Parts: sequence; C-alpha cells; structure tokens
Amino acid sequence: MPLRKNQISAAVARRARAIRVLLTDVDGVLTDGHVWLLSQLDGTTLELKSFDAHDGAGLTIMKLAGLRTGVITGRNSPSVARRAAECGMEFVYQGVPVKIPIYEEILKKAGVHDAEVAYVGDDLPDIPVMKRVGLAVAVGNATPETKRAAHYTTARSGGDGAVREVVELILKAQGRWEEMIAKARA
Amino acid sequence: MPLRKNQISAAVARRARAIRVLLTDVDGVLTDGHVWLLSQLDGTTLELKSFDAHDGAGLTIMKLAGLRTGVITGRNSPSVARRAAECGMEFVYQGVPVKIPIYEEILKKAGVHDAEVAYVGDDLPDIPVMKRVGLAVAVGNATPETKRAAHYTTARSGGDGAVREVVELILKAQGRWEEMIAKARA
Amino acid sequence: MPLRKNQISAAVARRARAIRVLLTDVDGVLTDGHVWLLSQLDGTTLELKSFDAHDGAGLTIMKLAGLRTGVITGRNSPSVARRAAECGMEFVYQGVPVKIPIYEEILKKAGVHDAEVAYVGDDLPDIPVMKRVGLAVAVGNATPETKRAAHYTTARSGGDGAVREVVELILKAQGRWEEMIAKARA
Amino acid sequence: MPLRKNQISAAVARRARAIRVLLTDVDGVLTDGHVWLLSQLDGTTLELKSFDAHDGAGLTIMKLAGLRTGVITGRNSPSVARRAAECGMEFVYQGVPVKIPIYEEILKKAGVHDAEVAYVGDDLPDIPVMKRVGLAVAVGNATPETKRAAHYTTARSGGDGAVREVVELILKAQGRWEEMIAKARA
Repeated sequence: MPLRKNQISAAVARRARAIRVLLTDVDGVLTDGHVWLLSQLDGTTLELKSFDAHDGAGLTIMKLAGLRTGVITGRNSPSVARRAAECGMEFVYQGVPVKIPIYEEILKKAGVHDAEVAYVGDDLPDIPVMKRVGLAVAVGNATPETKRAAHYTTARSGGDGAVREVVELILKAQGRWEEMIAKARA
Repeated sequence: MPLRKNQISAAVARRARAIRVLLTDVDGVLTDGHVWLLSQLDGTTLELKSFDAHDGAGLTIMKLAGLRTGVITGRNSPSVARRAAECGMEFVYQGVPVKIPIYEEILKKAGVHDAEVAYVGDDLPDIPVMKRVGLAVAVGNATPETKRAAHYTTARSGGDGAVREVVELILKAQGRWEEMIAKARA
Repeated sequence: MPLRKNQISAAVARRARAIRVLLTDVDGVLTDGHVWLLSQLDGTTLELKSFDAHDGAGLTIMKLAGLRTGVITGRNSPSVARRAAECGMEFVYQGVPVKIPIYEEILKKAGVHDAEVAYVGDDLPDIPVMKRVGLAVAVGNATPETKRAAHYTTARSGGDGAVREVVELILKAQGRWEEMIAKARA
Repeated sequence: MPLRKNQISAAVARRARAIRVLLTDVDGVLTDGHVWLLSQLDGTTLELKSFDAHDGAGLTIMKLAGLRTGVITGRNSPSVARRAAECGMEFVYQGVPVKIPIYEEILKKAGVHDAEVAYVGDDLPDIPVMKRVGLAVAVGNATPETKRAAHYTTARSGGDGAVREVVELILKAQGRWEEMIAKARA
C-alpha cells in the first residue's frame, strides 16, 4: 500500500506541540487487530501478534527525541512486553480492561498533565482515555464511535504504520523531525 | 481498510429484532478462511488461526446484552475453544461436517425457535442451517451460492469484522447499541 | 475481497470437459506465495504455510465428483502432506525442482493422457508442465511468463481461492457443479 | 494483487548494467515489514518472518546468472540465515544498526566498486548505503525519505515481489533475462 498522507489541521498541530508522552492501545493499533492462536498437540494454545517495523523505528526515534512512550491493553502476552522493550517503551500495562486508573497512574509517574499526553486507540474501551488526553488519535481501521472521539484519524491502519504516522505528526509539529531523521541515519 | 457500511432493509431489521442466539461458522467467518499449518521438526503439524479483535469485542458486548452466542464448525482445534471462551461463547461444536443435527440440539438447549436464531456462514455446508434460521447472514467473502441463501451479506469479510457488523446490526435493530456502547466504555 | 468472475471462453470450456486429473503447484498456488519461517530458541527454524478453506472445500468436492487431484512442488514440508490428506489429494510429490519426470509418472499411475490433465502454476518451473497438459492455468498473481504459457488465468490469487475457481470451472464445464453443490450441502 | 509494471528510465537501465552485487535490507524489503512474535507458555517469545516465493526464485536466478547477493539488517534471527541459504545469498550480516562499515567490508570481500552494487531499502537506516551504491532502490512501501534517496522505486511492496522486480530489472538491463528464463525452466 502506498503511503497516504492526511492534512494536519492547525488545531491538531497545536495539540501535538505540547505532547511529552505517547500512549497506545495494542490490538488493532500496534497490531492489525488480528489475534492469532496456535493450537499445540497437548491442547494448549499460543498467541501470535504482528507488529510493524516502521512503527517500531518510529517509537525508537520518539525515545531518541526525549519523549516517553507506553501501552495500555486489555489482553496479556509476553510478545507485547518484548516488543515494548525493543522499541524503548517505558510504560507497559497489560491485562487492563478499564484504562482510566492506569492512565492516571502514568500521569503521576511521568509528571505530566492531560494536555501533554497523546493516546492512540481503535475501539470502545479506548474512548474514556481519548476524552482526557491532549491529542486523541484513532487509527484508520478504528470503529466509528472511536473516530468520533478523536482529534485526528490516521490515514494508515493499525499494525501498518499508524503509530509511525502519529510519531511523525508529533515530531514535525514540534519542529524536530528533520533533526531526528539525520540522527536515525547516522 | 476503511469501514464500509451496508444499507439495512426494513425486512432484515425486522428479522434482527427477534434474535436471541447468534451462531457462526469458524473458518472464513470468525477467521479469514486461511488454514495455517506449522511444520514441526518431528513431522507433526500445528494449526494456527487468525481471529479479529473487533469481532471478539462485539461478541463480548452481545453477551453483556444478554444474547447467547456459539459456533458450529467442520474442523477441530483447541484455538477455537480458547477463542470461544475469551468471547463468552456458550455453544461450541467442532468437528461437525453436517450441521443441522447440532443446530437442532442448540435450539433445544437454548429453548428458542428458528426465528430467534441468526447464523453467519461463508460456504456450501452452511446453507442448510441458513435456510432454517430467522436471520441468515453471508460474509462479504462468501461463495455466490451462500450469498444467495442469505437475508443479508456483510460489507466486511470474515476475520475482518464481519461478525462485529452482525452484532451491531442486531443490537441496533433491537435499539440497544447505544446503551451497550456506554457499558463497554465504562 | 469480493469474488471476481472471469469469462470462460468456449476453447477453455472444451479443454475443461476432458479433465480427469487436477494437479497444482503449492507455493503461490495453494498458498499466497509467502514462506513463513519461525525462529526457535535453539537456532532451528520451522516453516508455516497458509492454505485457503474455499480451495480445500473445492478439492474435496472434486474428489466427491470422482476426479483425482495432486501436487508437484519444489519445496518440502509436512504441512503440505497434511493439507493434501485433508483435501483428499492422491498424488503428492514434494522436493521436486524439475517437474516433468514426476508429471509423466503421474500420467502412468493415473492412466490418463496429457489432454485429461489440468495444471495450475505461478512461476517459471511450472511452465514445462503447463506446455504439456490439456488445461494450463496460471493464478492471478503468476509471473508474466507463466500467464503467457496458460490457457486460462484465474481472477483469484493463489492461496485466496484460485484453485476453487479452477475446480468450479472444470465441474461447470462438465455440467456437474449443481449436482455437487447439492451433495456438498447434504 | 496484479503484477504492476514501472517504466525503467535510460539512466536506471545504465546503472543496472554495471551491477555485480545485489544487497538488500530484510524487514520491509525481503518481508512485508511485519514483525511477528509468538508468546510461549514459559514467557519466552519466538519471531516469525514472511518471505516471498517469487523473490526467492529471483535471487536463485541471480546466482545462476553469476551475480552475488546479500543482506544487511539491524535485527537478528535464524530464519534470515535459513532463507539466505535457501536463496544462495553469500553475504549475510545481521544485528547491524549502522550499515556503512559492513557495506565497505562487502565491497572488499567481493572486490567491487560502489557503481557495481545495487541496494534495496525501505527506511531511514538504509539511506547512507543508498547514497553510496550505483543503483539505490526503494520498495513501494518505503518511507518518503527513503524513496527520495533512491534512483528507482519498485511498483511492488517489500515481501510481495519487490526484490524479484529488482532482479528482473537488472538482468533485463544486462540482456540476460531471456537466457535465465530458459535455464530456470529446464
């Protein structure tokens, strides 16, 4: 799929300039929303998730730029912990059906206000956090209710570059993207 | 892929209002119809299936709304049992090449009539059940014969939100979707 | 993806009427051409392949109709043997870089002539067999050279219903599809 | 997806005629850029990658034609080593975040100059090598910055035939493609 580009409104850019922490949901945001289950011969099942290389590079650039990143997800799997570590994510909360209490814990730990947080979601459980943060983003494949709760909807789908798109949106709004490209190439 | 929307006819909405049980096929309906086989070094193979997060959230909402759900499938794998449990599905019948006897068993167990059941299918073995139920649905990637046997064909494909689309269709027809969104967000 | 339909020429239909054996390549034909490798902690790797449920149902219908089916493939994996068994395939030859000698062995075993065989391929090693058989089919995602060697190119891609499309083409040309639908539904 | 074709400019064809070594990135180039992680019951995770059969056949043809091939990648997995061996790749460097030193080592080992090397990339870490080589190629799904650093952008995406497209571009420019097709069919 070719990279599509969305127009960034002045209001979204203004919101993005304040961001110091980027939080995301996992299934449907860092992945394409497919839950893969491998059946073993003893009747147990193993879960497989698909992450995107461009998202991963974007999160690493985010950290390099001094911003902090994290995930809040309802499901629970070792692959999320590994992927978060690979991408330098600091806040990793799994098995969280109701997200607001964890969100508030992250605010405290990071010492930031709502306006300094961006959150990327795709479905109903993400909406309460999206109503709080400074920059609420829905991925291209989000449900209609989630898109209505967002300040911005990405052109790309979850697991296919949506988070990279948000990283670039934030760093460009902050005037730091060109500097980070130069560093990432070094 | 952007969420596409189909028009719901008055006849389909009327059928949907009566539904108390939602049954689905698995391969091509709860999955995208791909059968993944992992070859192990000892010559055995393990099967992998891909389910959709939005479908899963939809089935959970269905249960929250007091409707009952289940699967009838010709193949057999532990991953289906696990996924059904995760989504609160009550009727789980695997290894069923001929579906009508099981369908009738479910009618009895659930204490419902044909008109109170919706069934979602994608290929020839689904047609006999589809000819019985109150609301017969074919997924967007179903074979032509299956679509001809359906009251409604989803815009979305199997394993990519088709079942979520059916859940929303039913709960909206029953005037309960907005209430369930509020609960799911809580 | 919606089911697309190709026009079948009179010449292709005539070729299809004579078919008694359907042979296919595996990677890119019964699968989408992706070779998945799982890295294990001890440094070994396991191979994963993705087959299509509609193809499988089609091959089973083919057998039910009394036609014989098989695969000739350059790679080698237990998952192909399992999938072939699930679909009632009789001729299973793996690890075959040069396909003509095996093709001739199958002709003998099956007691058929070139004109009674259909072969479905996607890349250069398939071309020699395609030049021999009565009905040479290229999948939608085949390379240009392979399409030029085919009597017919499917609308569907490999691993996404291409073989089901060939099964229907043959059984419809032989006037047996409606009968088989009725049996498959029974 | 149907095979799309790009126009090859005279300048790109001239660059391609000099190529003796083809180097590629892995994630997003030989794969579709998805990083699959399988969670095991003991909390460890295994990585899965998806390669393309047409790419593999192309790389094998490249070797048959006497050209040399290799990968330079930031990540590290046994599946890359296996796939490289299957495709007759000679230079295999994994776990390489900064690619220029390895690139220069390959120049020495292969005894070639910049102008004799083609490199295929998709993201920022590929750009320094792309600025050196005789033929710099970006895949269809590359980031905008990477495409701007390329002499040529493939019509196909990574993991879906992009490398096959480059193999054909080079061998056609060198007037050797028809000869190699004949050999590959033999």
